[in-house]
Amino acid sequence: MDKYKIRPAKKSDSIQILDLLIELAVFEKLPLPDLKARKRLIRDTFSKNPPFKILLAETNKHISGYSFYFFTYSSFRARKTLYLEDIFISEKYRSRGIGKMFYKELLKIANKNKCGRMEWMVLDWNINAIKFYEKLGATELKDWKTYRISLKPAAANP
Amino acid sequence: MDKYKIRPAKKSDSIQILDLLIELAVFEKLPLPDLKARKRLIRDTFSKNPPFKILLAETNKHISGYSFYFFTYSSFRARKTLYLEDIFISEKYRSRGIGKMFYKELLKIANKNKCGRMEWMVLDWNINAIKFYEKLGATELKDWKTYRISLKPAAANP
Repeated sequence: MDKYKIRPAKKSDSIQILDLLIELAVFEKLPLPDLKARKRLIRDTFSKNPPFKILLAETNKHISGYSFYFFTYSSFRARKTLYLEDIFISEKYRSRGIGKMFYKELLKIANKNKCGRMEWMVLDWNINAIKFYEKLGATELKDWKTYRISLKPAAANP
Repeated sequence: MDKYKIRPAKKSDSIQILDLLIELAVFEKLPLPDLKARKRLIRDTFSKNPPFKILLAETNKHISGYSFYFFTYSSFRARKTLYLEDIFISEKYRSRGIGKMFYKELLKIANKNKCGRMEWMVLDWNINAIKFYEKLGATELKDWKTYRISLKPAAANP
């Protein structure tokens, strides 16, 4: 029988984390993070005050997925929000309930931190993910548009 | 001649900050934050490790606007993002360049923190704001949908 576990990332997981990041970029048809960005990501993940946290899914001792989150804040609600920057399950490990396990763990963390919300973004063509999120009870913020300005420090990877 | 200044908020600005928050909620046609939420917001703003920062615009010693920001993180870019939770200028102070002053100050802060991006959301009917953002060079993330789950701690103010 398969054994599943959700646990925080540790430094020895660095290579697997980067492998998942690359697999996610390919899946999302986005430019791959360059070598400098990958190095910065690992440095920031295991820095003294990391600007985000990583949870990993372990399946039979293999890293099968990751989720990457931090806390934002809602001024109107006056509560922290758990913001899910990435959630990704490696292709061969899908449809085994790992996404649901991540969700439960993240919900536990959000409640522990008295969050008023959980939020994330999804690419509009990723119908499987959207179905999964809607089944969880999430709703799309249809009236809001997101705007971005890209700044210089990493112009090669906008 | 009018005198303008952008500066960090201090505790004695609390009442004016809440006045602007209420004015923003009315302008955005969103439910007003209740008393408990307003108290939490001020407590969090001036706590030891505030989860966000507030910049105020001062015009002839009156508080004419505020912006409310924190740092998020882009895993692909491996850089912090300056996330603008709110930017609001009181109605009678508009069209005087205060928005542009906020933008310049926020850009300076983003660059100082080596951010790869600035991001924010805008209501789709707020055409004036959208025009202003597009003039600054910001672009809409058209392919991404934002999802949210509201959690229990402040169910009265979703």
